[in-house]
Amino acid sequence: MKIAERIANLGTETAFAVSLAANAWASQGNKIYPFHLGDLNMPTAPHIVDALNKAIADGKTGYCPAAGIPQLREALAEDVSVRRNLNFTADNVIVQPGGKPVITKFIQSLINPGDEVLYPNPGYPIYESQIEYFNGVAKPYRYYPSPSGFSIDIDQIKSLITPKTRAIIYNDLQNPNGAESTDEEREALAKIAIENNLYVLSDEAYFEMRFSGKSKSIAQLPGMLERTVILYTFSKKFAMTGWRLGAAIAPPEVAAIISKLNTNDESCTSHFTQYAGVEAIRGDQSFLPVMLDTLKDRRDTALTYLREIDGIDVHQPEAGFYLFPEVSKLMQRKGFKDVTELMEESLHETGVSFCTRLHFGRPQPNEELQYIRLAFSGINKEEIAEGLAKFRDWLS
Amino acid sequence: MKIAERIANLGTETAFAVSLAANAWASQGNKIYPFHLGDLNMPTAPHIVDALNKAIADGKTGYCPAAGIPQLREALAEDVSVRRNLNFTADNVIVQPGGKPVITKFIQSLINPGDEVLYPNPGYPIYESQIEYFNGVAKPYRYYPSPSGFSIDIDQIKSLITPKTRAIIYNDLQNPNGAESTDEEREALAKIAIENNLYVLSDEAYFEMRFSGKSKSIAQLPGMLERTVILYTFSKKFAMTGWRLGAAIAPPEVAAIISKLNTNDESCTSHFTQYAGVEAIRGDQSFLPVMLDTLKDRRDTALTYLREIDGIDVHQPEAGFYLFPEVSKLMQRKGFKDVTELMEESLHETGVSFCTRLHFGRPQPNEELQYIRLAFSGINKEEIAEGLAKFRDWLS
Repeated sequence: MKIAERIANLGTETAFAVSLAANAWASQGNKIYPFHLGDLNMPTAPHIVDALNKAIADGKTGYCPAAGIPQLREALAEDVSVRRNLNFTADNVIVQPGGKPVITKFIQSLINPGDEVLYPNPGYPIYESQIEYFNGVAKPYRYYPSPSGFSIDIDQIKSLITPKTRAIIYNDLQNPNGAESTDEEREALAKIAIENNLYVLSDEAYFEMRFSGKSKSIAQLPGMLERTVILYTFSKKFAMTGWRLGAAIAPPEVAAIISKLNTNDESCTSHFTQYAGVEAIRGDQSFLPVMLDTLKDRRDTALTYLREIDGIDVHQPEAGFYLFPEVSKLMQRKGFKDVTELMEESLHETGVSFCTRLHFGRPQPNEELQYIRLAFSGINKEEIAEGLAKFRDWLS
Repeated sequence: MKIAERIANLGTETAFAVSLAANAWASQGNKIYPFHLGDLNMPTAPHIVDALNKAIADGKTGYCPAAGIPQLREALAEDVSVRRNLNFTADNVIVQPGGKPVITKFIQSLINPGDEVLYPNPGYPIYESQIEYFNGVAKPYRYYPSPSGFSIDIDQIKSLITPKTRAIIYNDLQNPNGAESTDEEREALAKIAIENNLYVLSDEAYFEMRFSGKSKSIAQLPGMLERTVILYTFSKKFAMTGWRLGAAIAPPEVAAIISKLNTNDESCTSHFTQYAGVEAIRGDQSFLPVMLDTLKDRRDTALTYLREIDGIDVHQPEAGFYLFPEVSKLMQRKGFKDVTELMEESLHETGVSFCTRLHFGRPQPNEELQYIRLAFSGINKEEIAEGLAKFRDWLS
């Protein structure tokens, strides 16, 4: 069959190849340490599962509205509002089978062919893929190392703006680098968006996954609410990645379009799963501090070992579950030709499996510093210690 | 926010407005008889729910492969093969969050802008919507009343073929008209597809939902396997509409593209739901004859009452759960100006709520006969009898 031409513009997540390589190595009897997984190896809280079963018993196994059940839309509107000091209503909330569908539906709803969209690079690779798939022009913006970890190059963003720029994708508490905007940076981005009449997709997947401090949304800044679509997901906070439950929080006119896309694409999100989502939001929240403590402990353990390695420079993120060590000096010292070689040799020499900067977009011109990404979401503390001790010793 | 231009090409399911009107009427204290619902008011079998819970307990709450878990892909490949006397493998099977996503993914994978796609009209309205949304040219083909119920106008299809025709969407055991192809008709379609090098989306949502006889797939005919994508769904057979579980069964090169679309659009289908799908296919099948008996009984009850109404002509379908009565003479006799007026007055005078032909595509030129659609999937036998007795008496 002759594949349609548009598919040539479709990207993917090359990180899946890392999983495949790790699994192949493990299947040959080797011990692996999975730092490549952006997934949580923790169970969903039992009361959330109970709510799913109650919904099934109550007969919630048939279709439901494309936009989601009213109870979940209301619960999300309230919860997202309280945490951001905003006033969303159910009309702003369109339930999705995961957070990811918000990316394609934002692009489809707001971006015409030829429109330029700024997106973070390194960043979640699906941004670039979806922009280009729908014939937008994907323009990457960069981060630079700063005292707060990583900062967005606001001057570069300004230089990238043209009359065709239509939107910015913004992922505070970033995957892969863990970057968190200062108030000034977030305000500078908002100013650019307002002055140039841009829309913002604010990917807030990690909004509540933090170890200290408090998250802020760009939607809270004056003039931003009416131009921002928030990507909300149950995946991280509630350890529900595989459930596929999320939502777009959008101005009503965009919410209506996203709902129409739901009708066309998947009818609705799993009906009973949405009742579990209501319980996740409204029910007992005691699992969250436990989960965050566990993750913080893993982060600290990983940092301890990584910082013992000569030539690795790694920032401590206060949110998310990724470390993004700079390994340029290490590579020079050990003679690795690129991060892919480092990654492959690490797997085979130590079992430590991770992604690299190259899994998060095409490197930008003149990019010199080399990075790898270690996720501490899918590996326990003891394994982190064992794996990174081997990694450290191998590199010493 | 300024909505992207492509959204102007996006259709919807106008039948949802019928639900809203019925619910509004019910909320004013009126009794309604829901013949508009293309949904099943039956529970999913308990062993399928148990398998979901076992999967959750086993920790299947994280991400899984974009194409689906191997166990479900294998189970589907086997089951679909056995029932069609074909030899699919897991490589042919890409799990989806419902059957509906197969429509958009077929179009996206195989149709270039300007390519013409033939589709049934009346038919499921999302076909037309997705063809036009992705800038294909949607060319409707018609049915005509025949001794076997409804037949596809093969001569019209031949007349519609041009050098730009790329695909035919084919929904045997049709929604809304219940049409089932004779062997000759299916063979004629296959001949046209092969001679003109067309792809076929074979929507087999109702393949196993039959009261007598045995279904056949167009993919079984010589030369068809390599050009056909089958839409498979768990929704009907297993009473799992709201679970959102289905699959594309496609040639491997198309399956790979559809899997890449999954990666971009929703990552994967709910992980634990897929284990329930394995149990649905491999486990106890005793629920199916019970469900089909119930549906057959409903069908027969509805037919009995409808056939007592002067001016209604209705065929007995052997599959699916829709009746598609021709009401032209009735409308003339009672002075209804169109089927919408009949539908609205029926709701308010009798509580009997149904869809009309107009919910299944724009009428074709010179279309004279008038139809309504009554679903017997979402209403019990007693209610069918009570509602249609009122309907009959009102129209006498």
